[in-house]
Amino acid sequence: MQLPSIGVLGGGQLGRMLLQAGLNLDVTFHMLDPDAQAPCHELTPHFTHGSLTDPDTVRQFGQAVDLVTIEIENVSTDALEHLQQAGKRVFPQPQVIRLIQDKRLQKQFYQQHGIPTADFILTENRADAAQYADFLPAFHKLGREGYDGRGVQRLTSAADLPKAFDAPGLLEKLVDFEKEIAVIVARNERGEVSTFPPVEMVFHPEHNLVEYLYAPARIDEAVAAEADRLAKKLITALDMVGLLAVEMFVDKSGQVLVNEVAPRPHNSGHHTIEANATSQYEQHLRAILNLPLGPTDTIRPAAMVNLLGEPGHTGPAHYEGLNDVLAMEGVHVHLYGKKLTKPFRKMGHVTIVDSDPERLWSKAEKVKNILKVITL
Amino acid sequence: MQLPSIGVLGGGQLGRMLLQAGLNLDVTFHMLDPDAQAPCHELTPHFTHGSLTDPDTVRQFGQAVDLVTIEIENVSTDALEHLQQAGKRVFPQPQVIRLIQDKRLQKQFYQQHGIPTADFILTENRADAAQYADFLPAFHKLGREGYDGRGVQRLTSAADLPKAFDAPGLLEKLVDFEKEIAVIVARNERGEVSTFPPVEMVFHPEHNLVEYLYAPARIDEAVAAEADRLAKKLITALDMVGLLAVEMFVDKSGQVLVNEVAPRPHNSGHHTIEANATSQYEQHLRAILNLPLGPTDTIRPAAMVNLLGEPGHTGPAHYEGLNDVLAMEGVHVHLYGKKLTKPFRKMGHVTIVDSDPERLWSKAEKVKNILKVITL
Repeated sequence: MQLPSIGVLGGGQLGRMLLQAGLNLDVTFHMLDPDAQAPCHELTPHFTHGSLTDPDTVRQFGQAVDLVTIEIENVSTDALEHLQQAGKRVFPQPQVIRLIQDKRLQKQFYQQHGIPTADFILTENRADAAQYADFLPAFHKLGREGYDGRGVQRLTSAADLPKAFDAPGLLEKLVDFEKEIAVIVARNERGEVSTFPPVEMVFHPEHNLVEYLYAPARIDEAVAAEADRLAKKLITALDMVGLLAVEMFVDKSGQVLVNEVAPRPHNSGHHTIEANATSQYEQHLRAILNLPLGPTDTIRPAAMVNLLGEPGHTGPAHYEGLNDVLAMEGVHVHLYGKKLTKPFRKMGHVTIVDSDPERLWSKAEKVKNILKVITL
Repeated sequence: MQLPSIGVLGGGQLGRMLLQAGLNLDVTFHMLDPDAQAPCHELTPHFTHGSLTDPDTVRQFGQAVDLVTIEIENVSTDALEHLQQAGKRVFPQPQVIRLIQDKRLQKQFYQQHGIPTADFILTENRADAAQYADFLPAFHKLGREGYDGRGVQRLTSAADLPKAFDAPGLLEKLVDFEKEIAVIVARNERGEVSTFPPVEMVFHPEHNLVEYLYAPARIDEAVAAEADRLAKKLITALDMVGLLAVEMFVDKSGQVLVNEVAPRPHNSGHHTIEANATSQYEQHLRAILNLPLGPTDTIRPAAMVNLLGEPGHTGPAHYEGLNDVLAMEGVHVHLYGKKLTKPFRKMGHVTIVDSDPERLWSKAEKVKNILKVITL
């Protein structure tokens, strides 16, 4: 068999790790990214510098390949639909991406399909939001184009209402959660579905970015089973082909609520490269290429630390402490090849594997304290 | 810290897996290969199509990088010495490569340093070899430019002497060995030395290429300790920086004899990608970059199957059975991206991991029987 050539919308770190995995199957990748210096720009001669949201650019890019996929969901779904109609395979399917691009549609979909999720109210603009003081405290989320902590804010009381987004969005009841977890689930064209064990995320208190991740999550078996069931139910309800990262809350009573999803490899699955029988990147490829899905069992417990640009440093990236963390056992460094750092930019991640939970935790903290992305 | 840019002499599969590993450390690779379609040709914009043995080409190639390494030993050591004198870092060092390029010098080195090896006689030409009928049966090996089973032949009796190589070589006493094993050892500039657990090779009866590999080797602890000791002694005696694959015989009495070495990542270390705490590719980079060496312990027992071009098939490669082997648990396929197959060409390898030795063996055989590189 010959595998189809794959066009990836986005040539960032997720595309880079996808390409690393795809090399083993001799996949030819084409990548499109708005940044001429994106992490993939030197890794394939078929790198195109261009907009992911411009329909003409995306359409033209897709014409050169057999199959189109994404590593970011903010892309022109019109162009993807056009390509699909023209006979290209597009996974995840354009209608799934369109639904997920809009948090309002996402939430309504959960509701319609009996997927437990936090209570919410759709809001059309700031004035509209202002009438729901009684619903606070809540998160106010923009319907579209909110990523990585952008487009989300907490409205604690009526006094915060003047800063509500003045665009279509939703108010979401604060969940008094015990943990945030994620399950990555894959589905191929023949309908095989496979989940990775749930992972547990620890967020940075200020920046709403994942700071640590622990895998597998320290949760009850019943909670893990429910999270697994919801992820499978969701990807099947979406009739989606590809990889879906499902972020969930576990509340104090042990109930699992779906928070948000991403239809692609995800930050919460980086550790699978070293810690699971198949990585999320290979699994994404297996799913969209309609290959048998790989086993997902945990080989070794892992922690993952995002490596973010240090505050106060903007310019050519320098990795302080690299030598020291490489001297630690079970530490796997992944730098994304971004030449320029800026505060809180995702510059890499580190996966730490260790069979002893105490040692794992302490190594993760040590890595976080030692390894810094700065400018000289 | 900023890592130096690395120029690799050779852009084949070993270079490809080295590059895959190096992406995680954001290493910039330049590659030189005589084949314009070599496995690395699309993976870096700094790919140069050119001869590895032409001193001018190698010298010019090396001038653009901070550090030069190899993925094949048949290169111009004169050019490497020139680069070294001009201030470039070259690892492994040119004098080590020069020694290893010549099997006669290799054998003499073992002898001088008390490294046990099979008895041998140097021969200058066919006529010279003809006088050693009494030494037969033996292998006759060309001193230089014998790779992958080329340049080696068995002379069983005096009747075979007319086919002896008519060039400088050596006659090597046949070792009545129980097993062939290999130990990969790394050494960095600060003198840290680290070995991988010994592996066991099973050769194809006709083609003198490794057919299966088992890791770790099924040998006594004392034998493993001796193999480990010899590998460390050898890399230290060579004063070498880099990765050294040491192939050894274990004879019926349990004695370990060094057979041949390769100063680079090696076929006998492919499995380390999935089966060991650090891969041989990352270890090679750590060694030549003078980073701390990584831990090498076995995570899971593994078997490795070389994927060779099927006899009778020459032309564009087609991978028959790929879908079936990907459906097997613990099977990791590595295709090298060679567009054209020919009989016995190394097109890829498959690593199988399984904690149960019986199942591991049976899966390895199954993979070997199912996955074929053919033309359509």
